[in-house]
Amino acid sequence: MALDPDRLFPAETNTRQIARDLYETVCDLPIISPHGHTDPRWFAENQKFEDPAQLFVVPDHYVLRMLVSQGVSLEALGVAGQNDEWFETDGRKIWRLFAEHYHLFRATPSKMWIDHSFEFVFGLQDAFSPETADNFYDQISEALNTDAFRPRQLFDRFGISALSTTESALDSLQWHQQIQTSDWEGRVITAYRPDNVIDPEFENFAKNLEIFGEITGEDISSWEGYLAAHRRRRALFIEHGATSSDHGHPTARTENLSQAEAAQLYEKALMQTCSAEEADKFRGHMLTEMARMSLDDGLVMQIHPGSFRNHSGSIMRQFGRDKGFDIPTPTNFVRDLHPLLNAFGMRADLNIIIFTLDETTLARELAPLAGVYPALKLGPPWWFYDSPNGMMRFRELTTETAGFYNTVGFNDDTRAFCSIPSRHDMARRVDCAYLATLVRAGQLSQSEAYELAQDLSYNFAKKAYKL
Amino acid sequence: MALDPDRLFPAETNTRQIARDLYETVCDLPIISPHGHTDPRWFAENQKFEDPAQLFVVPDHYVLRMLVSQGVSLEALGVAGQNDEWFETDGRKIWRLFAEHYHLFRATPSKMWIDHSFEFVFGLQDAFSPETADNFYDQISEALNTDAFRPRQLFDRFGISALSTTESALDSLQWHQQIQTSDWEGRVITAYRPDNVIDPEFENFAKNLEIFGEITGEDISSWEGYLAAHRRRRALFIEHGATSSDHGHPTARTENLSQAEAAQLYEKALMQTCSAEEADKFRGHMLTEMARMSLDDGLVMQIHPGSFRNHSGSIMRQFGRDKGFDIPTPTNFVRDLHPLLNAFGMRADLNIIIFTLDETTLARELAPLAGVYPALKLGPPWWFYDSPNGMMRFRELTTETAGFYNTVGFNDDTRAFCSIPSRHDMARRVDCAYLATLVRAGQLSQSEAYELAQDLSYNFAKKAYKL
Amino acid sequence: MALDPDRLFPAETNTRQIARDLYETVCDLPIISPHGHTDPRWFAENQKFEDPAQLFVVPDHYVLRMLVSQGVSLEALGVAGQNDEWFETDGRKIWRLFAEHYHLFRATPSKMWIDHSFEFVFGLQDAFSPETADNFYDQISEALNTDAFRPRQLFDRFGISALSTTESALDSLQWHQQIQTSDWEGRVITAYRPDNVIDPEFENFAKNLEIFGEITGEDISSWEGYLAAHRRRRALFIEHGATSSDHGHPTARTENLSQAEAAQLYEKALMQTCSAEEADKFRGHMLTEMARMSLDDGLVMQIHPGSFRNHSGSIMRQFGRDKGFDIPTPTNFVRDLHPLLNAFGMRADLNIIIFTLDETTLARELAPLAGVYPALKLGPPWWFYDSPNGMMRFRELTTETAGFYNTVGFNDDTRAFCSIPSRHDMARRVDCAYLATLVRAGQLSQSEAYELAQDLSYNFAKKAYKL
Repeated sequence: MALDPDRLFPAETNTRQIARDLYETVCDLPIISPHGHTDPRWFAENQKFEDPAQLFVVPDHYVLRMLVSQGVSLEALGVAGQNDEWFETDGRKIWRLFAEHYHLFRATPSKMWIDHSFEFVFGLQDAFSPETADNFYDQISEALNTDAFRPRQLFDRFGISALSTTESALDSLQWHQQIQTSDWEGRVITAYRPDNVIDPEFENFAKNLEIFGEITGEDISSWEGYLAAHRRRRALFIEHGATSSDHGHPTARTENLSQAEAAQLYEKALMQTCSAEEADKFRGHMLTEMARMSLDDGLVMQIHPGSFRNHSGSIMRQFGRDKGFDIPTPTNFVRDLHPLLNAFGMRADLNIIIFTLDETTLARELAPLAGVYPALKLGPPWWFYDSPNGMMRFRELTTETAGFYNTVGFNDDTRAFCSIPSRHDMARRVDCAYLATLVRAGQLSQSEAYELAQDLSYNFAKKAYKL
Repeated sequence: MALDPDRLFPAETNTRQIARDLYETVCDLPIISPHGHTDPRWFAENQKFEDPAQLFVVPDHYVLRMLVSQGVSLEALGVAGQNDEWFETDGRKIWRLFAEHYHLFRATPSKMWIDHSFEFVFGLQDAFSPETADNFYDQISEALNTDAFRPRQLFDRFGISALSTTESALDSLQWHQQIQTSDWEGRVITAYRPDNVIDPEFENFAKNLEIFGEITGEDISSWEGYLAAHRRRRALFIEHGATSSDHGHPTARTENLSQAEAAQLYEKALMQTCSAEEADKFRGHMLTEMARMSLDDGLVMQIHPGSFRNHSGSIMRQFGRDKGFDIPTPTNFVRDLHPLLNAFGMRADLNIIIFTLDETTLARELAPLAGVYPALKLGPPWWFYDSPNGMMRFRELTTETAGFYNTVGFNDDTRAFCSIPSRHDMARRVDCAYLATLVRAGQLSQSEAYELAQDLSYNFAKKAYKL
Repeated sequence: MALDPDRLFPAETNTRQIARDLYETVCDLPIISPHGHTDPRWFAENQKFEDPAQLFVVPDHYVLRMLVSQGVSLEALGVAGQNDEWFETDGRKIWRLFAEHYHLFRATPSKMWIDHSFEFVFGLQDAFSPETADNFYDQISEALNTDAFRPRQLFDRFGISALSTTESALDSLQWHQQIQTSDWEGRVITAYRPDNVIDPEFENFAKNLEIFGEITGEDISSWEGYLAAHRRRRALFIEHGATSSDHGHPTARTENLSQAEAAQLYEKALMQTCSAEEADKFRGHMLTEMARMSLDDGLVMQIHPGSFRNHSGSIMRQFGRDKGFDIPTPTNFVRDLHPLLNAFGMRADLNIIIFTLDETTLARELAPLAGVYPALKLGPPWWFYDSPNGMMRFRELTTETAGFYNTVGFNDDTRAFCSIPSRHDMARRVDCAYLATLVRAGQLSQSEAYELAQDLSYNFAKKAYKL
């Protein structure tokens, strides 16, 4: 099945034509991918990708979770456990299992991304099914064996003008170093993600802090030294192209403590004597410290709150993080962001980009907040909402209060490299569909719509992330 | 007014045609009604229904509540109070009062159900109004007096292939016994609803437990005896066709206590010394016990949480339960289902079907949970959301994350027998409208849509409820 | 750009034609504006409006907040601070700044209201932009200088049949007095808003109570005297045309305390020793007292809960209230309204109109509550939801459970006089679009739709507010 060229456009004929015309003007714009989780090593070493299963199935938590929900085991999908249990290592077997269950993905964004990759990256136009699985496996394997399908070549072919990965505060940045010093001109940059040295409840927090001190040469036994260590790392990340930091906390809580109180809390964190409440408070205060540093060093600040991580204890014990068992929770931004916004919300020279996993906050809290505080902008629909309906609801729920200009374009946020063009294509289609609907309803002129299509597809991300 | 043959189909012409074509293939499929509240006595005795008011008005809490909201009294609608106050007993007077207020139901599902029953069950095509009320009353009365309108005959005419009623744990199951031993071949089965012996806050809880012990011959003074009594009753229900249990708790809270702790809590429940918190905890733990029993006896487990029952104290005192004063409340499934899912969520041989009265949880919590835990499936939109918009929102909010295959088809959940065909017709129409929208937007192929139309209308319910 | 005559109508051609036909029958109906915040002094003195910036920019918190969100300062927009800081006083400069940022409002209701005012009130059909700003300024200034653009003349030209302003319990009502005794026949009435003498956390609460006692001649040192003072003021407001009271509390909490307990709490309020919890409880109880008084004096009771007022401390300190920094919060109506509804919810002679800033409560709580309690009706979408999508979601989320007849028509709630026709026009268009959608889907007959279009545009507001 070849993809429908009108996919995701409005049903009504006149509106569809407007959407089609708008899309024509943006479909070939360069891709800005300002936030994601691809592996910088790919671009540093430019090795060939392993096999179709390793590319499409094993690392994709969207794919894993859907198959698990219907009783397929993670082991059978090639996911290694923490101990020495068996897991499938035959790529073709994993691939066939995937094909047998591919109907589960009907009408999900995963299917649209994967079908798009099959067709546009690998030229495969048949419907993927148990019948075609082997043929797909062979053809993709063959392609991956050619130089044209190495990471840098795909990056160039995808038309990516800038791509940010995300590294922990303790990362050596060696792959980014290697990319920078190579003769390849692709722009791959890093982003500063310090959760593992900010969250007292992170695995190995004390050990992480120790390393944090060692690699920065700062005395992390004091609050001042700890802050200095952050400043040093941020500076190093900036040297490796970073324009943003990223913060993935369980809640959106922020705090603005006195330095004395913060220092006391840090001491508790260091001694690992924080209660759950104190750990949350410390994380909250550190967002305000990060904002303060951003005012100095210019890093754009991203906050990704509200996921109940590792909901299944048995899966966490056996397979670890990021296996599809993170579930969104209700979030209260009005209360939780209050300390941070009271401290720095009126600063027009600060860029805080907020994401949510709780759509009920879009119209009620986030659009009203971003629609008045100069420092706050709305990140695009994230994770479970990075989907046609999720994107449409995002626009419908935020535009009337925050407008378009307090949003920041699209992030693909992906670990799946081949899905990048399809994800941006989806976002551009849905935005054009939304703009077309407004034009058809007399709420926007044609010329405004054309200008906004460019903004939403390219300009806003470039500006918001300083790229 | 004859019903519009295109009702509930999408507005746009191309999409409408796709929906119409899909609907053609499912409109005459047999009805599976795997969860509802019709009275098994009807099918056991096969007596004629009393009169139009008793059939359409008096027992229907949707109808009662709308008329009450505009100042009509329950007494005038034929509802008897707990004491000896007057209430209307003249069916024709109740019927006229209903007709006078029928405009209140414009654009509600109740009106669609009732109009459909008028036309398809009784052949009445005029608009129901004060002018036509007497004629409707006469014609329906006349029909009800004929053998063709007895319960079993309607059941067969409606094309019902299986129907489950719901009985309390203390029910004698005499009507189901009578149905089973009759020569009628209609499949009417029961479901195990043990709220009145699980909820320490239920009216007459202690007395109920006493009876529970008597009818099972178990010693309910001990925790082990209490569990054994449940097992016995479940076995008896299964003998009467039950394939599911049903649990209607104020919250979705689950607990997984140690047996020692559970036994202590049960003792408090038995002595009626539970605090509100302890009662909630006990109910929560019993869901985990019920799941454990399901792993043994195979009953599908339904959870219907989150209703603030009997919101008006004065109505409760005068008229009792189920008079339209139950109101949905916010629910937190991520936290509340955690103990149960941690215990048994990864078991693919367990079927937990979860319903919600809080739509904000569909995309945020329930689709992500059902989209990863093998034991959990999403029940259809329930109660206030058993409506065209409610069903459409359900699909829009869940499909992108949980797909179609973690849902279980439609439940009519009704007390109003004549509404069964209209309710299933509504669900089939809305699902076809949704599928058509996906086809038109290039998100689903025609052949996938035809297959899914069958699944959503028939196959999923049959499979999920083991019918 | 002239406004699109089909704006806000459905995209699909058949549905659009139905909407257009419905709209034709209601677009010229008189305007009932039963709740808003225009200044009665305008109509009392009938002075010319100052300049375009003072009319369109400075007092409009929707406009201010959007410009502030993009880094424009309130001072530059002509807003005076609490101290003697500079602020812009040149209307033309403010106007140009507004024009430079007008693109921010694309697809917002503010832009639709303002464009409509430009075209229908001032005859300006060009697109408003930096290029046309001066011309707009000149033409509007010129118009404002003519008698035809004085408040009373505009009121008559707008076709307003009744307009309610809102005054504090301490207001002298002098302007209403002056309107009543003038020879002008426009119906401008007041509404009783006693927050400043009910909320122990209101600025100058103690001083306010003192004045409350003085102007009523009641002994407000006692609970009985305090209640008597309310009764006196309500009577005076009724003499000045009031048919409603209005209550803007931080939460929807109600209480129904014994008189002894209420008296004790009042004493604490009077002594300013209430905790935050006690203040909330007192406000909650006073809603029940207000309802009790309404049963005597017939005032319709409006409740506007759930705004976190003055979210930015620095803006509050420098510029005071109502500068765009009020943010919606989650609200729980099922629990919070329980005491009030248990006391008086079954009284069909009481009219409580409830508004929400939390749309998640519409289907879950408010429609079920208004769909059963005779005393409760749903106010129209409010504030951030007074918008095309907000209005459409309101109907989609409430109609299936509460029907149309438990809603009360439209409120413009505006401080911006010239926006009144555009706001009512928007509401009528969206309601016709919704009705047309129902007709197209076979859920409503044409004749029902025509009747409802009149009801939603005119009859419901007239009846609910006793106008």
